[in-house]
Amino acid sequence: MFFVRVNMNDRTYQVTETPPEYRHLAGRGLTSTLVANEVPPLCHPLGPNNKLVFAAGFLSGTSAPTSARISVGAKSPLTGGIKEANAGTSWAADLAAMNIQALIIEGQPKEKGAYWGITITWEGKPKVEFFESTQYTGKVLPDVYPAMYEKYGDKISVCGVGMAAEHGYGNSGVVFNDMHKRPTRYAGRGGMGAVMASKGLKFIVLNRMGAPGMPIVDKALFEEGRKKMIDALRTHAITKPKGALNTYGTAVLINIMNEAGGLPTRNFSSGRFEGAPRIAGEAIFETNKKRKGEEIYNHACSPGCIIQCSNTIFDEKGDEITSCLEYESDWSLGADCGIDNLDDVAQLNALCNAYGLDTIETGTTIAVAMEAGVIPFGDSKGAINLVHEMGKGTPIGRILGAGAATTGRVYGVTRVPVVKGQAMPAYEPRAVKGIGITYATTTMGADHTAGYTIAPEILGVMGKQDPLSPEGKAALSRAFQATTAFIDSSGHCLFIAFAILDIASGYQGMIDEVNGVLGTSWTADDILKQGAEILKAERRFNEAAGIGKEADRMPEFMKTEPLPPHNNVFDVPDAALDSVFAEL
Amino acid sequence: MFFVRVNMNDRTYQVTETPPEYRHLAGRGLTSTLVANEVPPLCHPLGPNNKLVFAAGFLSGTSAPTSARISVGAKSPLTGGIKEANAGTSWAADLAAMNIQALIIEGQPKEKGAYWGITITWEGKPKVEFFESTQYTGKVLPDVYPAMYEKYGDKISVCGVGMAAEHGYGNSGVVFNDMHKRPTRYAGRGGMGAVMASKGLKFIVLNRMGAPGMPIVDKALFEEGRKKMIDALRTHAITKPKGALNTYGTAVLINIMNEAGGLPTRNFSSGRFEGAPRIAGEAIFETNKKRKGEEIYNHACSPGCIIQCSNTIFDEKGDEITSCLEYESDWSLGADCGIDNLDDVAQLNALCNAYGLDTIETGTTIAVAMEAGVIPFGDSKGAINLVHEMGKGTPIGRILGAGAATTGRVYGVTRVPVVKGQAMPAYEPRAVKGIGITYATTTMGADHTAGYTIAPEILGVMGKQDPLSPEGKAALSRAFQATTAFIDSSGHCLFIAFAILDIASGYQGMIDEVNGVLGTSWTADDILKQGAEILKAERRFNEAAGIGKEADRMPEFMKTEPLPPHNNVFDVPDAALDSVFAEL
Repeated sequence: MFFVRVNMNDRTYQVTETPPEYRHLAGRGLTSTLVANEVPPLCHPLGPNNKLVFAAGFLSGTSAPTSARISVGAKSPLTGGIKEANAGTSWAADLAAMNIQALIIEGQPKEKGAYWGITITWEGKPKVEFFESTQYTGKVLPDVYPAMYEKYGDKISVCGVGMAAEHGYGNSGVVFNDMHKRPTRYAGRGGMGAVMASKGLKFIVLNRMGAPGMPIVDKALFEEGRKKMIDALRTHAITKPKGALNTYGTAVLINIMNEAGGLPTRNFSSGRFEGAPRIAGEAIFETNKKRKGEEIYNHACSPGCIIQCSNTIFDEKGDEITSCLEYESDWSLGADCGIDNLDDVAQLNALCNAYGLDTIETGTTIAVAMEAGVIPFGDSKGAINLVHEMGKGTPIGRILGAGAATTGRVYGVTRVPVVKGQAMPAYEPRAVKGIGITYATTTMGADHTAGYTIAPEILGVMGKQDPLSPEGKAALSRAFQATTAFIDSSGHCLFIAFAILDIASGYQGMIDEVNGVLGTSWTADDILKQGAEILKAERRFNEAAGIGKEADRMPEFMKTEPLPPHNNVFDVPDAALDSVFAEL
Repeated sequence: MFFVRVNMNDRTYQVTETPPEYRHLAGRGLTSTLVANEVPPLCHPLGPNNKLVFAAGFLSGTSAPTSARISVGAKSPLTGGIKEANAGTSWAADLAAMNIQALIIEGQPKEKGAYWGITITWEGKPKVEFFESTQYTGKVLPDVYPAMYEKYGDKISVCGVGMAAEHGYGNSGVVFNDMHKRPTRYAGRGGMGAVMASKGLKFIVLNRMGAPGMPIVDKALFEEGRKKMIDALRTHAITKPKGALNTYGTAVLINIMNEAGGLPTRNFSSGRFEGAPRIAGEAIFETNKKRKGEEIYNHACSPGCIIQCSNTIFDEKGDEITSCLEYESDWSLGADCGIDNLDDVAQLNALCNAYGLDTIETGTTIAVAMEAGVIPFGDSKGAINLVHEMGKGTPIGRILGAGAATTGRVYGVTRVPVVKGQAMPAYEPRAVKGIGITYATTTMGADHTAGYTIAPEILGVMGKQDPLSPEGKAALSRAFQATTAFIDSSGHCLFIAFAILDIASGYQGMIDEVNGVLGTSWTADDILKQGAEILKAERRFNEAAGIGKEADRMPEFMKTEPLPPHNNVFDVPDAALDSVFAEL
């Protein structure tokens, strides 16, 4: 396996064998360890000393199901701390097929406003070539992505950044192609797009033609694990074909969270939204059925996924508005803004994808602006206009592009739902205490995927726990955070967790798959330990960047304002928050 | 002496005797200790749990020369840490005359956008009354200040906040009247104005009629100290009548710092400004002489000041443009923006005073916006327009109103001269290492007044030290910071330091004055210890607010970009920075 280092100072590159100390790292484990080891914690995130690291998971590029995740890591311009964001895309499988364990983008060109792309092809080893890309800037992504396919053929995978990144926004993602060549699969959170753009890099095009594919040391063991994983995914109610995710998508959670009183509404001022049924996964399924004249089940974002949770939203004529509308996006651009018009929510989502914005940060930021009186809650046309302003980079657009924390600061708003500068996702911490602990303590800034305790607290995965109780939740969040750090390294989508946490053979399947690829003999204990090591490396970086345990706290309003309908505050003691890392 | 606590939740108040533990604290020592003891470090600075504390110095209200300083303290919306800002004004003397040791503003009204004023009068003890003030909002300060004098008579002193504060800006000061009833004397830094406005408080009017005046325990000792102080101030070349400050004002430093290669120019990209002579103190003196037909020496900002360093800038017709244009304002709105038109700089200064903006933060922020390409460097009319936008609260105005750090973030600028979120003042740390250590390590965010090592490094006070050398500068900054914390508690203006650091009897004079007032027998050692205790209390607050030693660092560009003309970087080791507080 190779490390490919691209130097944007002078547009050169270097291919080396993977150094021994990184051999057994992949995905988030590899991006975070490299960032922690090589990036000065106090560097400017958009300056020449930050590094942008891409690493696919252990299993990416293999036939393991639902395993084409790519991790993107750097120091975040949104949080000032370490960041890993990941996406599902053929790009991950192609990077792995070319045996590139880490792609590391370094330096920064002296020319301001000039952009390049790179292609990586296989000529006995990875080969990097540069091409001018300034002509593709200042345009929405759907207008420039096709040019890459025209230029480099149909067999490629494409990574890029949009106008949000070109503006240097803390809210700007790195985008990857989906199965239909669309720029829709985002490593969305924490401003990884702006880091890439700050390096004068607009596109990374992969062509795996001739590449050897991912080596597998113990094929029999891998195959055994793969079968266990497939069985688990095909059996579990959430992940099975025509199951919850395949039918309703992640937006199946809208009604569930609303029922639980934990759907953050109108800038986190209530846990229940009266318009929830109109934007819920069930409404998407029924609307599509009506508009297309048949039941539409969801599709895969990347090759080899058997969960297939990506929906499409069709307009009244049956044309696609967006693909896909995730629960988080549906919530942030919908309920959190008081918007219940599904077509408008879908259009907002499409605009975020077109400009290269993170949907979670965008919706929560608009909601903070609504609280400030910029536009009223529920004003979907006003919200659409604001997203266009973000794309254009006008002053109001730039305020919003800097994210919810900055928007709150600029408008003097005191109810700003952020931790470490990153906006909270779609689960109210006052109604679901465990996820609040994850938001508060994860190295990432508020992030549900870092330790998704919603599984037991709401969905009853691994047995049901009372979401309103803080009891035992620090330990729960810690276990989920460590396990997740490993899953984020495996290449598997986090959604396998629903199945493998309930079905023990599925969990063993993941371990077998990874041991098969690497020739290791890791146990479940080893996996938890590795997850913990990843978290500790991230934590060390953050502490050196000035982000210590005082940053592991909820915003003040969540500790003082009771949330309807349960009228709970966030009552997890600081000592419990501190125990998450202290006892790791 | 009394504590007066005003509760803005329900517009009530409480007068108590000063609690014993606070009896020997005043000015910054009192505001910082109260904030550290009573404000939750992680509260939202604009929320109901922050407190705004006013405290005059030990000597305010006495006949000690140059002693009418008022300290304003709170958790800062600009830095997120503790803040003390002070100003010279009759308001300080009046507060002391009414024996109010601390005025503490607490709580927050439920009504958004509603404002009140308070009057404090003497009826055997301090008496507080509330009056509606919403009608005075949305207007520039020179248009509303006269209404207070019309309403409450000529004998009052007036504290207020402007439109910048009403907008919730991190860049918004608390203003006090000068000797001509003008709203011009600012506790400018760190957004204390926004904290006051967040409490629905627009004005604090003091009428000392009938009040007992400041008690002095040992009048003979006080008188002895006062004479020593007066002798020192009247002797030293910087502070004597028709000396440097009285003739040229603080802007005498423009040419001096430019010569030293330490005048930050065009957003800290050079240490030398070719237009410096046109905005220097000498140019002010000569221009005024030409326009008024006589030599104009400077005036006092507050009763009892014998240094008298406040200039007035007159236009071609001989009418006042602004009073007064300090060195820091002249530099930030001039050299740092590449502007060399004195009349335009004076107008920018007048606009900052009218809207309630801190001039240092305003100029440095506009310079960052210039670097981002919002307007070109040197565009004084464009800068004037931007300050109007700040006053109006438009999106671009709000970006700038949030300060240099936020503006840098919103525009993706990497050269942003801030520490702990506060913009650097008028001395380049790469050319003057000691002041850089003060910027980096003071609890206040970048602040020259916190430990003004310019005195020995540039002006030769206490002997001359090489400004380019980092050697011994941590100890120098530490000693200055501790001494300053005491001077900021004494009520004396920091400018007495020039005289008393060179003239030992003057230093003893300050100690005698304070011992005379309090009946204590403090020594020079006690004073340093008390200064250190104040710094430690501030530091404890900041650490609990998540601002630790990793925040005691220069921005990255100062460590990597050599500064013309000396082509130095900021080369003070982290260990030296850490030693400032570690060895306190």
